[in-house]
Parts: sequence; structure tokens; C-alpha cells
Amino acid sequence: MAGSTFGQLFRVTTFGESHGGAVGAVVDGCPAGVTLDLAAIQHQLDRRRPGQSDLVSQRAETDTVAVLSGLQDGVTLGTPIALVVTNKDARPGAYDDMAQVYRPSHADFTYDAKYGVRAASGGGRASARETVGRVAAGAIAQQLLAAQGVEIVAWVDQVGGIELPVDAVDEATIAAADVDIGPVRCPDGDVAAAMETLIRDVRKAGDTVGGTVRCVARGVPAGWGEPVFDKLHADLAKALMSLPATRGFEIGSGFAAVPMRGSAHNDPFVPGDDGGVATSSNRSGGIQGGISNGMPIRLRLAFKPVSTIFLEQDTVTASGEATTLKPKGRHDPCVVPRAVPIVEAMVGLVLCDHWLRQRASALRE
Amino acid sequence: MAGSTFGQLFRVTTFGESHGGAVGAVVDGCPAGVTLDLAAIQHQLDRRRPGQSDLVSQRAETDTVAVLSGLQDGVTLGTPIALVVTNKDARPGAYDDMAQVYRPSHADFTYDAKYGVRAASGGGRASARETVGRVAAGAIAQQLLAAQGVEIVAWVDQVGGIELPVDAVDEATIAAADVDIGPVRCPDGDVAAAMETLIRDVRKAGDTVGGTVRCVARGVPAGWGEPVFDKLHADLAKALMSLPATRGFEIGSGFAAVPMRGSAHNDPFVPGDDGGVATSSNRSGGIQGGISNGMPIRLRLAFKPVSTIFLEQDTVTASGEATTLKPKGRHDPCVVPRAVPIVEAMVGLVLCDHWLRQRASALRE
Amino acid sequence: MAGSTFGQLFRVTTFGESHGGAVGAVVDGCPAGVTLDLAAIQHQLDRRRPGQSDLVSQRAETDTVAVLSGLQDGVTLGTPIALVVTNKDARPGAYDDMAQVYRPSHADFTYDAKYGVRAASGGGRASARETVGRVAAGAIAQQLLAAQGVEIVAWVDQVGGIELPVDAVDEATIAAADVDIGPVRCPDGDVAAAMETLIRDVRKAGDTVGGTVRCVARGVPAGWGEPVFDKLHADLAKALMSLPATRGFEIGSGFAAVPMRGSAHNDPFVPGDDGGVATSSNRSGGIQGGISNGMPIRLRLAFKPVSTIFLEQDTVTASGEATTLKPKGRHDPCVVPRAVPIVEAMVGLVLCDHWLRQRASALRE
Amino acid sequence: MAGSTFGQLFRVTTFGESHGGAVGAVVDGCPAGVTLDLAAIQHQLDRRRPGQSDLVSQRAETDTVAVLSGLQDGVTLGTPIALVVTNKDARPGAYDDMAQVYRPSHADFTYDAKYGVRAASGGGRASARETVGRVAAGAIAQQLLAAQGVEIVAWVDQVGGIELPVDAVDEATIAAADVDIGPVRCPDGDVAAAMETLIRDVRKAGDTVGGTVRCVARGVPAGWGEPVFDKLHADLAKALMSLPATRGFEIGSGFAAVPMRGSAHNDPFVPGDDGGVATSSNRSGGIQGGISNGMPIRLRLAFKPVSTIFLEQDTVTASGEATTLKPKGRHDPCVVPRAVPIVEAMVGLVLCDHWLRQRASALRE
Repeated sequence: MAGSTFGQLFRVTTFGESHGGAVGAVVDGCPAGVTLDLAAIQHQLDRRRPGQSDLVSQRAETDTVAVLSGLQDGVTLGTPIALVVTNKDARPGAYDDMAQVYRPSHADFTYDAKYGVRAASGGGRASARETVGRVAAGAIAQQLLAAQGVEIVAWVDQVGGIELPVDAVDEATIAAADVDIGPVRCPDGDVAAAMETLIRDVRKAGDTVGGTVRCVARGVPAGWGEPVFDKLHADLAKALMSLPATRGFEIGSGFAAVPMRGSAHNDPFVPGDDGGVATSSNRSGGIQGGISNGMPIRLRLAFKPVSTIFLEQDTVTASGEATTLKPKGRHDPCVVPRAVPIVEAMVGLVLCDHWLRQRASALRE
Repeated sequence: MAGSTFGQLFRVTTFGESHGGAVGAVVDGCPAGVTLDLAAIQHQLDRRRPGQSDLVSQRAETDTVAVLSGLQDGVTLGTPIALVVTNKDARPGAYDDMAQVYRPSHADFTYDAKYGVRAASGGGRASARETVGRVAAGAIAQQLLAAQGVEIVAWVDQVGGIELPVDAVDEATIAAADVDIGPVRCPDGDVAAAMETLIRDVRKAGDTVGGTVRCVARGVPAGWGEPVFDKLHADLAKALMSLPATRGFEIGSGFAAVPMRGSAHNDPFVPGDDGGVATSSNRSGGIQGGISNGMPIRLRLAFKPVSTIFLEQDTVTASGEATTLKPKGRHDPCVVPRAVPIVEAMVGLVLCDHWLRQRASALRE
Repeated sequence: MAGSTFGQLFRVTTFGESHGGAVGAVVDGCPAGVTLDLAAIQHQLDRRRPGQSDLVSQRAETDTVAVLSGLQDGVTLGTPIALVVTNKDARPGAYDDMAQVYRPSHADFTYDAKYGVRAASGGGRASARETVGRVAAGAIAQQLLAAQGVEIVAWVDQVGGIELPVDAVDEATIAAADVDIGPVRCPDGDVAAAMETLIRDVRKAGDTVGGTVRCVARGVPAGWGEPVFDKLHADLAKALMSLPATRGFEIGSGFAAVPMRGSAHNDPFVPGDDGGVATSSNRSGGIQGGISNGMPIRLRLAFKPVSTIFLEQDTVTASGEATTLKPKGRHDPCVVPRAVPIVEAMVGLVLCDHWLRQRASALRE
Repeated sequence: MAGSTFGQLFRVTTFGESHGGAVGAVVDGCPAGVTLDLAAIQHQLDRRRPGQSDLVSQRAETDTVAVLSGLQDGVTLGTPIALVVTNKDARPGAYDDMAQVYRPSHADFTYDAKYGVRAASGGGRASARETVGRVAAGAIAQQLLAAQGVEIVAWVDQVGGIELPVDAVDEATIAAADVDIGPVRCPDGDVAAAMETLIRDVRKAGDTVGGTVRCVARGVPAGWGEPVFDKLHADLAKALMSLPATRGFEIGSGFAAVPMRGSAHNDPFVPGDDGGVATSSNRSGGIQGGISNGMPIRLRLAFKPVSTIFLEQDTVTASGEATTLKPKGRHDPCVVPRAVPIVEAMVGLVLCDHWLRQRASALRE
């Protein structure tokens, strides 16, 4: 399997090169009889698209999605849903002078090493443009989950050295509207303003900067996830680390757990609402033994600074000779503002898949 | 799929409860005609087994592996290799008084929520005993990889607040023998001594402590990994985050990349040996666009403090009433010394699988 | 998994309803660097399309394929190849009066039972129109196999009670050109003429008739296939029995083996060309123990008479009341003339997948 | 994937060579909380085992199954169930003189071609002994299905030229007890007696003979199966054609449908019990469009005569030179008496898997 399919029961296959004819996805395994809100799918694509602000790539794409199959009068048929977004502003020739020079920390060299051929322009499948299909498919997953009471909200947590204080966000209530207060998608206005300034400065310098995104999924009932290899946080780790430019993943307490003692780290169980069970802290991040425990799922994802910089760098040609390169093209000075809906999409795909998996096996009602 | 199988072409299925009859694995997809070194498999199991030092659980298991199939005169037949380790020191009754009380941050509650039934003793499949099958299977993967020139070495990097300085390890040369200089599996004697003292102090206090493990894989050629969902580091993230007690994963520069500028973070390409291509730094961790670039693969994994502590804690009963619990049983005060061979095993499983996947698709020789 | 994906390494996902916007497929796992002959893909679609003769459905479709991704200047990139055929002559309203009455031996009732909703027109995914994606993908597989020396040829063997004598075909040499001598795709002119007359008579009577297709795959080397569940003929059986209207499958001697003695049925081994091994008869159909033996792979597939007939039949309404139905619409009086390229496509998909699987595991060159 | 795993949600992985240490299976995905009847599992193994009568191989095996995991006090934990049968009468040396000569129509040559090495004795994984794991796993599936009201019954339908008349069996009521009236497992005493005589005569002559098995699954509700590649009868075809010595598969009317007209072949719908829908004939074999329609599932499977005969045959050596071979060893003169429980097992595995798949996706109750 060549790795363009994700999920066991809710399965997504994406296709498309950055500067080819189209990008998109086929979703197989979506339950039948669900009325889909196409505007909500488009809304997530709009949050992802380039050109939405001066903080992101200026490639001119409307990213309007067409549904080719699997829907009748807006209702799912249980059959594959093919989603296609035509590339409007592909520039196949724009990268010609870079075709024979490997851009540092890009996938040009590794694609050549793997395939012996690669899309001549703009990264092909390694481009973040591949995530269009993920976002469209993930938006469907998010709709199915919403009907189960599951809400997924991501936001920008850090840009460069500027961090959102932990207590600035109430993870129990934060909503997408709180995140979309500004183009950087950080829910604190002052911090967001500082992040925006940093991104603009970095862009002006022809450089790029890293960032982190946090995400919370509320309303996941206890019991989703599988005990060994397909632990819920393992599947989340894979889903999220498969995004371009990721460097690190944390669930719950993350790396901060390392210096702690078990007596301080354990989450005490307490009686929950309606006779259920809850925990009084949530360092487990809503998952214990790989299975959801009913508390909010909490995770964080680190993105490196974008590799495309408009500064001269040392590199080699395709034939291995030392040279220098000063790239052209369009790019994001920092990926995290556009990464927010992409992170939500991937979390949605994982949770929707495990929801169906749990439906299959749980004989008890 | 219930999540006990890992890998696409080199596939491992593990089975067994901590206090049941046996634990083990079936490996399907191992190429034929390979002479396996059974002693090397046993050696990795010995590095993982309880009772190997006073720093770890004192459960008395020799963990001797029996091979039921797939081998003839020590040579693989290309058919499934069934590996079984009988549980010698299972104590099904030892946890009886905990059966009705949920141990904090354990999987007792989530297993009940998922299955409506659970192994009465010691965590069942959530126990680290499940990793016996992973280590045996991973040791086979490591042998196959070694024949391709790939070496995998993991070591303890941090215990509680005690960190190994980054420049204390030469990742180009570190070997298992350097790691096994002491029971804590940290390659620097002074740091290791401090870690040992800390673990003994923590154990004496009835408490536990977290840690990190680093791992390097050398000799992976450029071209392994798939471009989208099955990026090499995404599969590594899943494999490693599926280990018990994990909280975070980093590839290459990890979270340290976040505050950096692209101009400082990018790895310049330079002419490599034999006309190849190399990079002069390795913040990419040997993977670009999800595909190996021929440089060492570098990763780090965070483990929380073990949940079993011998101190009184607040919790609830299976019927949801508040109570307190002071657990008994055997456990590790810190998982990282025994995690070292487990991390190596999981990295081996991922790399072996992607090696075979690349063999399938690369038409060029 | 909802069953719209086929193959382990050469993976095809099809999508599209008969009267929706488009039908198509995504092929993931096609090796990179292969120059595809798009005209050859279109040629197989032309052999499958309706309206090609008076023996088949008169739906007016050109079935022109568009490639949205995975190709650059006609060369495969190793990334997913999205193939789309727009439906030109969909008639969503034409079946309205049948929406509430179950057509006998169609999938109307079972889709309702499974999904609670179904495509209102013409069978949705149960329509043979779904096979457009299979033929396009299979044509790619056939091109890859041809480069390995593998040829796949299918032909019509029986229509109603009219059978092609076994000795009328030389399976060692028969080619597509021999098959395409007439619209019924039977390589013997006299038998073909009789079949054509029968099909026209049946159509005139508003009725339909069954048939069989034989297929041979020449040039498959010894060693493809897996020993247990994924035996080569088991995967062929699944692939072919997944086609609409199939009722039976035979490999090699098929049901004719049942009354035989082993002494008469066994295929004696004889020295082959170039120091290899051959068999002097081929009742094994080129497969022994689930693995190809280098002899031609031989199989036969039975198709029932098409369920759509223009005669009044007893049936029930969607609410379960007895009624009668005399269907309208367009249909084939006999599926086998158009089934020929579809059978070749499915055989191609299976063989291409097992070729790649064998590449992955065979360490010896 | 090397083909030793079957199923998507109810997954079975088998292992073991005929003359190795053990054979068995790991079942992953069995729902939790089910009380298993171990005696019923053993009963199916007893119906499969050699030595049960003079009609079958005289290898002395009790085939007693041990359960290593996944069960607690007889109740499933939802975790993998490892089932092991130790080989008691393996004779690794008994086939030594055949090691360098390929037995005609056996898998000796193809295993050598595929793997470059093979189990020296008795067929390795190609031996029918591999089916021990299938029967044990299938017996678990049959128990789960029985609780859903699904009964699976297979019987011998033909041995050599001796056929059971179609009207001799009432498919609505036939039970295993009707089948087990004699060692040949044909439910008609007179026909069974003739079959027994034929098998004994064939065995005396050192020869073997083919046969067919029919199977019915009653109580499957409408809606199981997937519409495209994973049609219910396609998965049944794969499952059954993966059994050793199979040559052909039929669903419902099978090859007998070919000469029929649609007007005679279609199954009229009629009002069913309790307001449901039924058909007045069942040429569809309980499946329409790949999805069950609530009527009994009916299928037939053809087995060739066993390849091991005790007569001199032409063949070649492993180095390709012509020779003759007169095999020794133990074997069945006809496989169908022992195939009955194996067929039931495979039908059980397919139906159990599709039951769980339908549970996952059907949002309506």
C-alpha cells in the first residue's frame, strides 16, 4: 500500500499534485442516510485555503469543492464520496530553474531517490496542497461526530518564541469562533497580535518560523480506541505527524510528564455526572491504555519553520555538485494559521474511524 | 480490525494477557531463506525482562521464547513465525482486592467501558507484558535490517529531571554495548549513576518517575517511506506512541524547531560519499517529506511516570463511588531502562516494513 | 472497510453511481517511471462501453477518461492516479416509477435493507456502470504486466445453450484481435454468428440470457501468489465473483475435475525450456498450492441472465405489498460481450498486485 | 501481506507447518463478553481430524486445542484468542526421498520457485493440516453467529460420479446431525453407502477421487455484504477457493444459470413473514448485488482428486531432470468427508466478519 489511504472503516484516499489538474479525496465507509452540510465542508476548506490573509501564501485558489458521487439530494448513500478541487493557479513552469537543484529540507531529493522521477513543480504530493483532500474528508467526519456530540477545536498555541499562556484558554468551552478572531488563529487578541507582527517580520526578511497547534476533542465517550497497536493516541500521533512540516506530538501532559512523580501525575478518578466516572485532572489527555475515558482529548503538535525561504542557501544539484539556491515561488512564512483546520480534520478522521470500529465490536448497548 | 496487528508487509500480531497462559506473536511476511539467530532474539527479550536488576519489576520470568512454526533448521520458510513465551509467574489472584476499584491513570476503567469485562489481574493487554511479542518480532526485523546495513540503537536520555547532555553521545557510533554499561541503560557513567540513585529513591518512596528514550537508526538508504499518510516518521510516531506510558514523540529537531527560523533550521545539502548526497546538519532527523534521505534517523520518546504507585490515592469503585486505593503488586519505578529494547523493536518493525514496501515498488535497480 | 478498494500493493478504489455525475477510480501503488499508453486505456473502455453494437445497451456514453493526477508528460509519478469518466447520458428521472417497486433479482431491495436509502435511478453502485473504474485501472495493470511478458486474453465461451467447442481455441496463441472479430467477442465465426442470433432473438422477446467467459493469462512466472488465504486463484475468484451477475468460477479443470481419478487428473512435470520445469497437461490452471507454476493461468466465469427484462413479473413494493412490474430503461440482453474487457481488467488487477507482492518478499534475484 | 490473515473486523491469522511443532490461529476482533463453548470448538476439530474413519488419512492426531489467551473463565475478553494444536504424529523424516523430486500437482515446485526453500516434509503450509487453525477460528465465528440466529450446515453432494439428487435434501431444515449419519457426511444413506464403497475402491487402487460439498447458511438477515469488491459471495468465493484442492465455486444457481432466460431465472419477490420481503425461488442464493436478502445463502464447492496417489508417475527432480515417483506417506483418498467442517468454518468466518462490518456502518437500529 502506497500510503494515500487512511482509516480502517472510515477510509479516505487522497490524490493530486500541487501543480497538476486537481486535488481531492474519495471517502469510503461513510454511513448512509446522513444529510451533509456542504457549506460546512467548504467553510473548512476556506479556513485552509491560501490567500485568505497577508500571513499566508498568496497562491490564488478558491478551492471550491465538487462532489462527484455518493450523495443524492445532499444525503449520503453509503457509497464512496468523491471530492474534487480543481487547481486554478497551478504554475507548472514556475519552478523550472529549481528542477535540477535540491531545495534544502524539502522532499525534492527524497522523491528523486524513491521514485527516480518527481513532479517538476512545487513539491507534488509533498506540498501542503495535498491536505485539501484531508480537510474535505475530515469535514465530513466532523459532521458525523458532531451528531454524536463530539466537538473538535484547534488553535495556534505558539509562533516562534511567542507562546499562549496555558491559562489563557478554557478548553471546556473554546470554540472555532474564538479561534477565528484574527488571521493567525490564536484565541488571545494580544498574543495573536504579537504573533502576527512576528510572522510579518519574518516574511519581510525572506525567512520563516515554526509554531505549535493545540487541539481538544470534547464529548468523546469512554471506550473508543484499541488496546495495543491502534491505541487512540497512537493513531492520532500518526495522523498528525503525517502532516507536512511536523516535528513533534504530545498527548495530555506530553514531555512535561517526564520530570514528574507518579503521585503528582496520576489523574484521580472521581464520581462523574449521571453516575459516571470522571477524573479531577486530565494529564492523561482523555485516553488511558489507548482507550478514551470520557474526558476531553488534549494534544499538541509542533511544526518546524517552512523550508522555503527566499535567502541564498548551500545545496547540491541533482547530479550531486555543490551549488547555491535562492528559491522563488509562493509560500507560507509560518504554517500554523492554516494548519488549524487541517489538524481538526485529521483528529476528525481518527475519531470517526474509531467510533465506527467501536460500533462494530461493542455488543452491549 | 482490533488493533493487535502491525505492519503492511512485515506484519506482527501479538497476543496474551499479563496473567494469562502465555504471551507471544505471529510474524507473517518474513522473507524466506534467512538464517535467524535465536540467541539474538532471546538477548533482546533478556534486556526487556523483569527481574534483570533492582531498578525494575521483580516479577520472576525467564521469558524464554519458543518458535512453533516458520523455521526449519534455523532458516525462515517464508511462512508465519509463531513465537510463544509462557507466563511463569502469573498471579491471577494477587489483584483480587483491586478488581472492583479503578487504579488511577491505569486502563482498568477504560477497558471496562469498552469491553464490559476485563482481565481481572494486572492490566491484561494494557500491561507492559504485552510488549514481549513486540520485542521478539522486532528482533527478527532487526536481523533482517542488519543484513541491509541498518543498525538501531536506543538509550536512556532522561530520568525525572536528570538529562544526558546532548554532546555526551556520538550518534554516529553509539552501540548497544555502550548503552548496556549499567542497568539504567544510559551511556554516560556519571549521569547513569545519578539516574540509578533517583530511581532507587523514588522506589523507596513508593513512587515512580518519568523518562525519555532516544533512538538512532543508521544505514537506512534514501527512499524508504511513503509520501502522504504513511510518512516514515508518521509510522514511527504511531509505533512508538503505541507503547505503554508514552506521552510525546519527536523526530529530528522536535519541539526545539518551533522557535527557530527556517534559515537556521534547514539542513544544507552537501556532496556525500561515493557521489551521493548528504546534509551537513540533521535537524530533519533523516526524513524529508516522509521519506528517508540516507542520514541517520533520530527520534525521542517521552514516558510518563508509571501509574502504579504504592501510595494511597483517591479513586472510585466500579460502581462509581468515591474511595481510596493503595495498590499492591509488582511494578517498575521507571519504565525507561526496560523500554530501550522495546523502542528498538518498534523502530525495527517500522523500518523492516518500509524496506519491503520499497522493494515492491521500486522498479529501478 | 466498505468494499470499494481492491488490492494490497496495487490498490484501486472506485467511485460513482450509474446516474450520478461521474464514475472513476483512484489507483494507488502504481510504480513510478512507467510511460502509460492512454490510448490503450481508452481502447479497453471502448470495448466495455454501451452502444458499441446492437447486442448491448444503447445508453449513449463515450466513456472518455480524464486523468487528474499521478502522471507527468505521460509518465507515472508513483503517486495516486485519479481517473474520471463523466456520465453524459444519465437519466436520473427515468426510473421514477420503479423507485417504490423492487425489480426482481436486482439489488434494489438489498440496498434498501442495508442502507435505508438508495440511488433512485438505475442501480447506483450495483449497476455495471461501476465497472468503468475497474477497466481503466485494470488497463494500467495490464500495461505494467505486459512489460513483464504477461498477456491476458478473455473471450466469450458460451451464450445460453450455445457453447464454443474446447478445441476451437488455441490458448497458447489466442489474442484480443481474434476475439474482436465480431460484436459478441467469440473467436469462432460460426459459433459467434449463432450467439449473435440468439442474443437478438432474446432481446426481441424482451428477455435476457446467460453466458460464460474464459480467460487465459500467459507469461506469469512461477512464484506469484501466497500460500494460505491469498492463494492466487482465491484472489482471482474474489475479483471475478465481485463482477455484477456472476454465478460461478472455475480454475483449471474446474467442476470437470470432480468425477476424475487423481491418476488421470495430476499434471505430470516435464523438463521445460531453458532448464526450467513445465507440465505436460494443465488441469491445475497454472496454479499449484495457490502459487503460479509458470504455465498459463486458465479460468472460466459464469454469468446469469441479466435481471432487467421487459416482461411483466411478480414482485413487491417497498412497503412489502404484492404487485407486478414491467420495467423500462436500457439494458444488455446478455452481459458477456461487454464482460470480456472487464474480466481482463480484474485478472490484471490481481496479477499486478501479486507481482508487486512477490517483488517485496523474494530476496533472491 | 503474506496471506496468512483473513477478515477485516473478525480477523484470523493461522500458522504452522504440517510436520512442524504446532498449528494454530490467532483470532483478533472477537467481541468481548461472549461465553465460548470450548467443547463445540473441539467437536468441529474432531469432525476435521485425520483417523476418524477408514475413509480418511490415518495420521494419528487428537487435535486437542489449547487456548493461550483472550479468555477468562470461558468468557471472551475482546483481546486476541490464541489457539494452538500441537502436532503429535509429525514425521519430519518420512518424506526424505521425495525432497528432491516434485510430486505432480502438489505445491513442492511452486514453493521452491517462490521461496527457494520449503518444509522438507509433507507440504508444509500447503498441507490440509493448515486448516486446523481455520476450523478452530471458524467454530468461534459459528458460535457468535448462532447467537444471531445464523446456522451453517455443509454436506457432501458428490463423490466421483456419484451425485446426491437435488431433492434429497431439504435445505430449510438440514442439520449437522443429518450429515453425520456416516463417515462420508452425505445425508442420504443409500447415496452415502455408494460413496463409501467408491472411496474404499479408489483407495485400494492407490488412487484418489474428487467431490463436491454444498453449504447453506440460514438466518442471515438482509443487509450483510458490501456493494462492490467485497460482495458477500465474492468474499465467500475467496474464502472457499482458498481451501486446498478446490477447483470451482458456485453461488445460488451457479453454472446452471447460463442457459436460462432471465424470465425463468429471476426470483420473484413476495410478501414475507412479519411484513418483510421474501422470494418465491432462490436462484440468487440469498445474495443480490453482493448483499444478503434474508433468504438462505446457498453455495457449492468442487474439489479435485487428491494429488497424492500411490502409483508411479512421471515427474522431474528439483534440478529439472525427468524421473518417476511413487509416493509414500499418509493421505486422504477423497477430501470431501473432512472438508465439511472446514467449509462451514470458512463460511462462518466470512459471515461473522460481514456481520461486524454491517454493525459498524448501519446507523439505523
